[in-house]
Amino acid sequence: MAERSIADLLREAADRIERQTGDDLLPHPDGEKMTRCFLQELVSILLAYITKTFDRSSKVLDFHHPHQLKEGLEGFSLELPDQPENLEQLLVDCRDTLKYGVKTGHPRFLNQLSTGLDIIGLAGEWLTSTANTNMFTFEIAPVFILMEETILRKMQEKVGWAEEGDGMFCPGGSISNLYSVLLARYDMYPEVKTGGMSDLPRLALFTSEHSHYSVKKAAHILGIGTKNVFVVKCDARGKMIPVELESSILRAKNAGCVPFYVNATAGTTVYGAFDPFLHIADICSKHGLWMHVDAAWGGGLLLSERHCGKLRGIERASSVTWNPHKIMGVPQQCSALLVKKKGILLECNQLGAQYLFQPDKPYDVSYDTGDKSIQCGRHVDVFKLWLMWKAKGSEGFGSQINRCLENAEHLFNLLSEREDFELVFKSKPEHSNVCFWYIPPSLRVIAPEAERDRRLHEVAPKIKAKMMETGSVMIGYQPTTEKVNFFRCVFSNPATTKEDVDFLLDEIVRLGCGL
Amino acid sequence: MAERSIADLLREAADRIERQTGDDLLPHPDGEKMTRCFLQELVSILLAYITKTFDRSSKVLDFHHPHQLKEGLEGFSLELPDQPENLEQLLVDCRDTLKYGVKTGHPRFLNQLSTGLDIIGLAGEWLTSTANTNMFTFEIAPVFILMEETILRKMQEKVGWAEEGDGMFCPGGSISNLYSVLLARYDMYPEVKTGGMSDLPRLALFTSEHSHYSVKKAAHILGIGTKNVFVVKCDARGKMIPVELESSILRAKNAGCVPFYVNATAGTTVYGAFDPFLHIADICSKHGLWMHVDAAWGGGLLLSERHCGKLRGIERASSVTWNPHKIMGVPQQCSALLVKKKGILLECNQLGAQYLFQPDKPYDVSYDTGDKSIQCGRHVDVFKLWLMWKAKGSEGFGSQINRCLENAEHLFNLLSEREDFELVFKSKPEHSNVCFWYIPPSLRVIAPEAERDRRLHEVAPKIKAKMMETGSVMIGYQPTTEKVNFFRCVFSNPATTKEDVDFLLDEIVRLGCGL
Repeated sequence: MAERSIADLLREAADRIERQTGDDLLPHPDGEKMTRCFLQELVSILLAYITKTFDRSSKVLDFHHPHQLKEGLEGFSLELPDQPENLEQLLVDCRDTLKYGVKTGHPRFLNQLSTGLDIIGLAGEWLTSTANTNMFTFEIAPVFILMEETILRKMQEKVGWAEEGDGMFCPGGSISNLYSVLLARYDMYPEVKTGGMSDLPRLALFTSEHSHYSVKKAAHILGIGTKNVFVVKCDARGKMIPVELESSILRAKNAGCVPFYVNATAGTTVYGAFDPFLHIADICSKHGLWMHVDAAWGGGLLLSERHCGKLRGIERASSVTWNPHKIMGVPQQCSALLVKKKGILLECNQLGAQYLFQPDKPYDVSYDTGDKSIQCGRHVDVFKLWLMWKAKGSEGFGSQINRCLENAEHLFNLLSEREDFELVFKSKPEHSNVCFWYIPPSLRVIAPEAERDRRLHEVAPKIKAKMMETGSVMIGYQPTTEKVNFFRCVFSNPATTKEDVDFLLDEIVRLGCGL
Repeated sequence: MAERSIADLLREAADRIERQTGDDLLPHPDGEKMTRCFLQELVSILLAYITKTFDRSSKVLDFHHPHQLKEGLEGFSLELPDQPENLEQLLVDCRDTLKYGVKTGHPRFLNQLSTGLDIIGLAGEWLTSTANTNMFTFEIAPVFILMEETILRKMQEKVGWAEEGDGMFCPGGSISNLYSVLLARYDMYPEVKTGGMSDLPRLALFTSEHSHYSVKKAAHILGIGTKNVFVVKCDARGKMIPVELESSILRAKNAGCVPFYVNATAGTTVYGAFDPFLHIADICSKHGLWMHVDAAWGGGLLLSERHCGKLRGIERASSVTWNPHKIMGVPQQCSALLVKKKGILLECNQLGAQYLFQPDKPYDVSYDTGDKSIQCGRHVDVFKLWLMWKAKGSEGFGSQINRCLENAEHLFNLLSEREDFELVFKSKPEHSNVCFWYIPPSLRVIAPEAERDRRLHEVAPKIKAKMMETGSVMIGYQPTTEKVNFFRCVFSNPATTKEDVDFLLDEIVRLGCGL
């Protein structure tokens, strides 16, 4: 593509933009040309950013403290004016916003479960925001409503449900998990919708100590109370121990509670562990409990022939959370809740607002799915995933995920052989999480007891602070109740290679050897 | 801008795209050029769509039934493949997705409270999706976190709170309203977070019969129960009647309930009414109740000197929902919850997940606002609003909103003088909602009693169906418990002019005169 001539055109556009404001854009009657110029200028800024994102010689971030950013760096002011700014200044603001941000698509951004910058997914988001519609009715989102139906059915097939279930895209995994608890409660006590919790016995739900905190948050929100969340012990690998679940259920019953819901996890946040779903399903069947699988992180593995066996038993779940915005690399946000029992989502949540869900519309109003939701307006999160699925096919997703897990295995193999690093658990990663300590030379000579642990606890935060300052790489760290601060490395960016993994270890040593 | 040369470049790119797949884009080592070509091609599709959106000779929609779209129109298939499709096909899919959708930015799309296509806001969304980050910590969203703080403070000032409060952008107004009920419950009974509702008395909340259904949905979700939502009567204009509120509170107390929360509305969904906030605030003070104002639709009027008086008394609210994605024209989604009591949002919702909210980070961790949220990952909804505020200034928002209300007044004036239309209520619109019936010639000769009403009920759906078929214009309709189907016209698109309003009436007559 002839870069130069586009650049010339943009320069010409920029000359005009300087003298114009937003009022000169569409819908201004003569606004078409200026609209095209302005958006093309913006796109050229975004394309430059995208190129930099994938360039290893570019920093992951250019760190500034909150007070520095608030003071206004090089004229970048966050303050909101009473009077309009011109288009040229807005483009400068856009450039600055990206400059002081974090490149979450950088191959060395390993800080969260959601990383990467999929170009097809990005194209999907640009189109979605241009279409600027809302998921409540078929009337105003005909194509997106049908795409949601198609994708949810596909995901249910991958989960292994023979019959068509139900589902919905939600604003993040926490809300998807909240839905699952809401549905389970309604399934056991439909009268709760009108009467509330006052007439119900004390309910109890179960989740492992390694599960995501959103299950507890759901209990808080729904009025069940966090103390009625029974936290089930895990083995050293972070997997729920079935006999512990069973004894927790009995303990809850003895305490006068009514158990109704178990959350099992496919890919825990920190260790990447998969709970033993078949065992848990047996226990749920025996006690008549709703089994939910939080596969926000691990769901993507269902698309990999090599790894899907790790989710064996998920087909017995009553509901599943699966976030394509994690290991599948879909831009944020994109989280699906899948429900086995068809109809319960609508029955539980519908209130039949007359201004939206008129029964006398000229089309099949069962496609007006908005009343299934706890939201009213709902963002279109499905299109980018649909477009990526077209672009990659199920198989393409599978191989992309395999590569992420290969990176984790490579890191695990390296760490297993090194004396300056220590693994938090010794077994091969099930997902792409690898947890480890870096032991600086000064600590290698001390026995691994209280004093060493006290000092080791400070190592990860210090190295992380240096990483952010240099901007060379980013990974997360955290303690657990029993373990001092350790690094958690996760791979979900297809741009990350084995060389980046090698770089990570070199960089940790470089930044940490003097500690 | 030299359109032709860009078109040439894109044609050249298209020739290559045909032979390529997503694997040839970045992060492929040689993927930069192809990435630029592909995204430029997409942008040219989007720019064409944007131009059409504002073109009155273009249809608002090209309606197809669900089964027609599912059958695959002109080769447009929703089905998901196992194998990848090439880039050329993906661009065709993008074109088709837009073709079969609804142009919500069209000057004659008057169907929802959120309409329009603000070019600056759109630019903000394109940048947001390119940055692809998440609001949970300052660490990965430094600029966006500070923008959220700046904007929330600005909105609080407009509400009239002297001291700094708190707040958060939420995925839509229903979730913002849910937060308000959650906070009110926690404020009165902090023990509910751990213990749940089992130990609490039966709680009661209050909202008007014209308020949004999300308040009832919140009661369902939080385990309060919809029957404990006391629905307060309104006057003919749709405003809550204060003495009815007071008597509802007493009735609830007599029934053994504990009142804790009142929702007042600034701009009801159907009538656009503003509740009498000062009266309601007095009643809330007297009974010690949390006063929430759902200003999802009406909040924008605070930016108009001409109209802000309609919200007098909102400053006495404990919390406010305000959706910039409605009358302010910000792309969806963008909804803010504002809370007067600083600190309660965090105290109520925090669980302190160690993997995200480490206390030993190198910066001021009070900027890690994620634990205030009921979500974990949270989409960046603030940037587009920030950029629009820079582009328009507070004053620009004000005049944009004034123009929307002028359109409503124009429609109201026209309707007042016509015999073939009837207003649902006679007073001048307070917001931009105008509710009316079209009376076809065949019904003008019948007395306005049961038989006429039965037939009148069918008029709006029939005309709406014809509108969708012709694609000329779109407005909503609905019944209430006492009134048969009527049209609700709302103006939130700055592209809509008085001529479009005239067109709307002509079109209704054209489509409906034979009924």
